[in-house]
Amino acid sequence: MKILVVNCGSSSLKYQLINMEDESVLAKGLVERIGIEGSVLTHKVNGEKHVIEQPMEDHKVAVKLVLDALVDKKYGVIEDMSEISAVGHRVVHGGEKYAGSVFIDKDVMKALEDCIPLAPLHNPPNIIGINACRELMPDTPMVGVFDTAFHQTMPKYSYIYPLPYELYEKYKIRKYGFHGTSHRFVSAETAKLMGKNIEDIKMITCHLGNGASICAVDKGKSVDTSMGFTPLAGLAMGTRCGDIDPAVIPFLMNTTGMSIKDVDVLMNKKSGILGVSGVSSDFRDVESAANSGNERAKLALDLYYHRVKSFIGAYTAVLNGVDAIVFTAGLGENSATSRAAICDGLGYLGIKIDPEKNNIRGEALEISAPDSKVRIFVVPTNEELMIARDTKDIVENLK
Amino acid sequence: MKILVVNCGSSSLKYQLINMEDESVLAKGLVERIGIEGSVLTHKVNGEKHVIEQPMEDHKVAVKLVLDALVDKKYGVIEDMSEISAVGHRVVHGGEKYAGSVFIDKDVMKALEDCIPLAPLHNPPNIIGINACRELMPDTPMVGVFDTAFHQTMPKYSYIYPLPYELYEKYKIRKYGFHGTSHRFVSAETAKLMGKNIEDIKMITCHLGNGASICAVDKGKSVDTSMGFTPLAGLAMGTRCGDIDPAVIPFLMNTTGMSIKDVDVLMNKKSGILGVSGVSSDFRDVESAANSGNERAKLALDLYYHRVKSFIGAYTAVLNGVDAIVFTAGLGENSATSRAAICDGLGYLGIKIDPEKNNIRGEALEISAPDSKVRIFVVPTNEELMIARDTKDIVENLK
Repeated sequence: MKILVVNCGSSSLKYQLINMEDESVLAKGLVERIGIEGSVLTHKVNGEKHVIEQPMEDHKVAVKLVLDALVDKKYGVIEDMSEISAVGHRVVHGGEKYAGSVFIDKDVMKALEDCIPLAPLHNPPNIIGINACRELMPDTPMVGVFDTAFHQTMPKYSYIYPLPYELYEKYKIRKYGFHGTSHRFVSAETAKLMGKNIEDIKMITCHLGNGASICAVDKGKSVDTSMGFTPLAGLAMGTRCGDIDPAVIPFLMNTTGMSIKDVDVLMNKKSGILGVSGVSSDFRDVESAANSGNERAKLALDLYYHRVKSFIGAYTAVLNGVDAIVFTAGLGENSATSRAAICDGLGYLGIKIDPEKNNIRGEALEISAPDSKVRIFVVPTNEELMIARDTKDIVENLK
Repeated sequence: MKILVVNCGSSSLKYQLINMEDESVLAKGLVERIGIEGSVLTHKVNGEKHVIEQPMEDHKVAVKLVLDALVDKKYGVIEDMSEISAVGHRVVHGGEKYAGSVFIDKDVMKALEDCIPLAPLHNPPNIIGINACRELMPDTPMVGVFDTAFHQTMPKYSYIYPLPYELYEKYKIRKYGFHGTSHRFVSAETAKLMGKNIEDIKMITCHLGNGASICAVDKGKSVDTSMGFTPLAGLAMGTRCGDIDPAVIPFLMNTTGMSIKDVDVLMNKKSGILGVSGVSSDFRDVESAANSGNERAKLALDLYYHRVKSFIGAYTAVLNGVDAIVFTAGLGENSATSRAAICDGLGYLGIKIDPEKNNIRGEALEISAPDSKVRIFVVPTNEELMIARDTKDIVENLK
């Protein structure tokens, strides 16, 4: 069975064609600048890159080009589109309706439309992508995999905000959490690495990428997570501020005359590691500036580590102890310095990193010392594979 | 030495006259509705209440009445105003300038004025109160004791927000923390109860009143605290929301048409325990509603406990372990249920409460079991006494 995984942004489309027999990636690629001058498709097969530049006025044209590339005589990987058994779509927001992945029918499309107010930037391109695929592959089953679904197991006292309860009832303002597919994937992989049943493990998964979130996973279920109503909450991130005193917003508006839109952009695009360091939103740049003696770059990193450490502490309390801590995504997979800095000062939990084992990049490996009371892992995330697995499970059950 | 402690609000004035020989309260009282119809002074001596109702157009008149009451033939406690050696004023915001209490001179008054933008509701009445006292007692030394001062020892990575750094440089937007006098008082008292040098103790102090904050105290110094730029941040409180996804604010404004002022009022006055329960901002009412089966009241309490527990976990990580946890203020001193609920599920730290010892109200006592790995205390706070002690120390050093 071959499954196409699709992730649509407002002007972009990422895809992977996965052979589910061995979970290998047959081809993958990225379409950029859809509907903008300079549209380009970069298609990769066996490490070889094929760049196709041509106007793409909308997502349907982009999907068509991707399908053409997949069956291309020269750089294609399948004979015919009919070899694609199903399409798995990444969808950002499933609201309270979806606690798992779902076969996409008319009702689901309606529900996705209903979620647009909760994810006005993300759900519309997801919907456009699904519609484009349905038009071009009307007989191929489609599955939706939600970033929010994994966190639907949070207890109510974790997801309700201490705001007037009516705001939850009327506008569904609550904590949803994101990166759910990633937290689910790495927690399952970690259980395998530990050779244990996930039901028996208390885990804290740290998805530290440009966007970043932490999740408390009890018996394989999310019980708390750092992102909230939107992906702005929680940790400091590349350009996002994470949790701040909410009273900063009225102060800023009253003192500077900024509009709420200005403040929103400031919190999402100009804050975080970029805002504090003044250097970059990319950790590699900030780490290198800090190493060259840049004080604000060093402050940005210290602040970042401090917040990750605080969340690990908080979630250890939420779980009443922790068996494993897992690092994933860009920084989590690649920065040995950051992992060491975060674990430094967690000795009270009996945590001990093995500096040599920690010195890895992008590999699934245990990095704790043999006598560490909490096991520490690096597990590269693979949201595409998780989406493909869910899609396979769902279409197999349709039969 | 007798010291008058004064705490001025916009239309109120609380005071205590303390005999520093034995730290006993000679008299205390409250003036309400200053500048509003129905002004009233309630003066208490030895548990006896004297109510004086008369128009008070401003704080100067109120201070004059307090001084008259203190020297009154019938219910006064001193012969003459000159017996008051010094006045200690509670001041909410000392900005970054004051890491301790200070003798009030012209420069200090200027600095307090400079802090008004940071505490527009609180510093102006504090300043008015100081000026009123200075006019009526021109030769009596005055000392300012700041709510923020104790937290000035926080490391920079704790107090800088992940916002553009220029907002700190230009507008001093950072975490200040509040309830400092209370956290300092109870941490010092706890060290005494433990019979240890405070330098050797890692402590988490939980000031759980209508306003609530938690503080990580390392070697007697605040290293992190849950309130922030303003007292809105951190825990859920009686009517304040504490930390929420900051993106809720633009969403609310855009979706409902509320102004930023409306949202500010909503977050400060209509949220927290009141907002979730719909019952009351008073924990006693909410506890009793929860006991009668009110689901939202139960949710409000569970949410509150969850957040306190999360902060205890976070600060245990910040401190790399904890020796003592201290409960103080209204709820912390009086609600055995809340203390038990918060400590429940912290077994991973080796915490064990003694249910019988926990069954106390408003007494300084250790409530942990003998084999608890972390010692748990209830310590009634006494900000007035702390202000009086600081005032005494400062005026003695003036000589």
